Amino acid sequence: MRVSIYRLAHFNAAHRLHNDHWSDEKNKEVFGKCNNPNYHGHNYDVEVRLTGELDPETGYLFDLGVLKEIIKEHIEDRYDHKNLNLECPEFKEVNPSAELICFNIHKILREVIDEKFEIGVKLWETPRNYVMYPA
Amino acid sequence: MRVSIYRLAHFNAAHRLHNDHWSDEKNKEVFGKCNNPNYHGHNYDVEVRLTGELDPETGYLFDLGVLKEIIKEHIEDRYDHKNLNLECPEFKEVNPSAELICFNIHKILREVIDEKFEIGVKLWETPRNYVMYPA
Amino acid sequence: MRVSIYRLAHFNAAHRLHNDHWSDEKNKEVFGKCNNPNYHGHNYDVEVRLTGELDPETGYLFDLGVLKEIIKEHIEDRYDHKNLNLECPEFKEVNPSAELICFNIHKILREVIDEKFEIGVKLWETPRNYVMYPA
Amino acid sequence: MRVSIYRLAHFNAAHRLHNDHWSDEKNKEVFGKCNNPNYHGHNYDVEVRLTGELDPETGYLFDLGVLKEIIKEHIEDRYDHKNLNLECPEFKEVNPSAELICFNIHKILREVIDEKFEIGVKLWETPRNYVMYPA
Amino acid sequence: MRVSIYRLAHFNAAHRLHNDHWSDEKNKEVFGKCNNPNYHGHNYDVEVRLTGELDPETGYLFDLGVLKEIIKEHIEDRYDHKNLNLECPEFKEVNPSAELICFNIHKILREVIDEKFEIGVKLWETPRNYVMYPA
Amino acid sequence: MRVSIYRLAHFNAAHRLHNDHWSDEKNKEVFGKCNNPNYHGHNYDVEVRLTGELDPETGYLFDLGVLKEIIKEHIEDRYDHKNLNLECPEFKEVNPSAELICFNIHKILREVIDEKFEIGVKLWETPRNYVMYPA
Repeated sequence: MRVSIYRLAHFNAAHRLHNDHWSDEKNKEVFGKCNNPNYHGHNYDVEVRLTGELDPETGYLFDLGVLKEIIKEHIEDRYDHKNLNLECPEFKEVNPSAELICFNIHKILREVIDEKFEIGVKLWETPRNYVMYPA
Repeated sequence: MRVSIYRLAHFNAAHRLHNDHWSDEKNKEVFGKCNNPNYHGHNYDVEVRLTGELDPETGYLFDLGVLKEIIKEHIEDRYDHKNLNLECPEFKEVNPSAELICFNIHKILREVIDEKFEIGVKLWETPRNYVMYPA
Repeated sequence: MRVSIYRLAHFNAAHRLHNDHWSDEKNKEVFGKCNNPNYHGHNYDVEVRLTGELDPETGYLFDLGVLKEIIKEHIEDRYDHKNLNLECPEFKEVNPSAELICFNIHKILREVIDEKFEIGVKLWETPRNYVMYPA
Repeated sequence: MRVSIYRLAHFNAAHRLHNDHWSDEKNKEVFGKCNNPNYHGHNYDVEVRLTGELDPETGYLFDLGVLKEIIKEHIEDRYDHKNLNLECPEFKEVNPSAELICFNIHKILREVIDEKFEIGVKLWETPRNYVMYPA
Repeated sequence: MRVSIYRLAHFNAAHRLHNDHWSDEKNKEVFGKCNNPNYHGHNYDVEVRLTGELDPETGYLFDLGVLKEIIKEHIEDRYDHKNLNLECPEFKEVNPSAELICFNIHKILREVIDEKFEIGVKLWETPRNYVMYPA
Repeated sequence: MRVSIYRLAHFNAAHRLHNDHWSDEKNKEVFGKCNNPNYHGHNYDVEVRLTGELDPETGYLFDLGVLKEIIKEHIEDRYDHKNLNLECPEFKEVNPSAELICFNIHKILREVIDEKFEIGVKLWETPRNYVMYPA
């Protein structure tokens, strides 16, 4: 019996979008006000999905309380109240776009969650703009 | 032309998680405060999805008013204001975990909805914890 | 790296459901109060999903600000504060059911968005009734 | 012990804004696209508040199930799937603006609910635009 | 400069409505399915408001992080995953109606928060039914 | 006939909390992670309320479309995608706490909206933390 479970989490962070290999003009043209050198910020909402076979003894796919703690330790504590560009090495070379934050959250969780569970991540940058990885 | 339609419903119920084949210690260790013998409860939200071929005469996949009534009769009236462990025979032997409530809702609807429609069920136990069957 | 991005938009419109090839009795029987000849209306919410390969230079799949403008120009400005039956030629012959509005939004966006992006559309007629195309 | 209780309800309706004593130009200038002669529509959400002294025997201010039925009978059934301008006599002479719909809902409820309860009404025309009467 | 601040919290609990001084028939007649002897349950949302004079040195009325901890310790830990009738002495003699739970939360917080702050409590039993004390 | 109308708006910004007259230790102790020198950020939601006498000719208190434009010009364009500490002179000397941002929004609107309307402002820093001015 194959099911999916979902847990919502959130963190607040500052970021800016910028490509170091481009001129200031090109950065401003492509990224607009998201390129502001003084940063801006968001309340990010994260949905983590695990998919796999139900454990018949517990009726659980995976303990949602444990999933909550994993997300707190590995995602919320890492990103909450941070400047993603300055304080998170994974965004030194790549842009902290919603897509790449989402990809990184998936990568981090992939290393700590048993591979028998498929992982999906959805990230809301605002209530109207959000992304999902894998697609 | 293949489309999906969705209808949201809800019910309020009490439950506890417990495996009769385990010791009290093991139940408490695995299920934590969800094992409280006096029960606790939730406002459950249910999303039912039907997928299939559009009827060109009506522009409907399936009448959403009819779907609302089917869900009311077979799901809401069955579970609303109930103690799932004590009053619902389907949870006498298995735990009323979100995963298994979701699986049961799918099973119940599968018996009353024409098999030409694929059915998917999503169940929210809280706004931050939810499950989907089939995965 | 394949990702999906989503943008939410909305419009308010009037409509009624009616099949010109049917008698008034059959229309009333099938469509109920949605057949009211004086129309009724909704706040429609639209979610547009694009899926494809991430651009490594920007960290974007597709600029969400550009997507917002495309949806405004082609969907919101076309349908907002309109009577879908009387003022939108695409619903002269077919019913403006949620399913067919959703299908039309997909068709309109398919013509203006590069075919390398897969498009999905979800349409809420009310917070409890919604549809998705493709399924 | 003075408390307030609240109940949310909703209905879908078509309307247009128009002042019969004005020229078409002035109507269009003042009401913009809300003046569309073919109507447009909304999903209206209504919050009804009752304030008064708690009944110590029940622990209720007023039975919320009874309030739900009163709102259904007097408000939802009256306005749902209607054209407010054409089918509701109270809007023959006055505009079905959010403010005046809200005022009318208060007036209707005031006639059927015991005067020992203070009544407040909030009406959402969209999730971003709403009104309250009394202020 | 007088401001209000708000903090949202939540807990899940089981309850039933019952007046020991009444017959079973009267209880059933008055409380309907809320009288189920096996209990049912809810996801309760709590909004706590503090009103008072801003501290000009911090720009705070009251540290929202401290308020979050006070609510966790005195409200969430007390009621979460509990059977309100069986495990909370304050509801041994009075009904755990939404009104009286709300009144009790106010009473508990009134004892631990400096009297220079006015306190208001809103309690959602479901997303459509909620109460406020003081009125 | 006295009514209130409400309009919701939003902006995304970076900020930090810091009192220049205090030591680094005291700032860290009082403001915790909100004191991060690299900033963090939020999606701020703003609710603006106007209260006054209804205009009987339009059925409006105040044109909600005009209010939307006023908020866009004076609030959203001023704060969106900005660093409140570095780019907004009103927060050079005072902390951009939720309370003081809310107070400033009220002050800005008070200067551009006719004094016959009472103004109230609610500001969400996160969906769980919000403030209101005047109280």
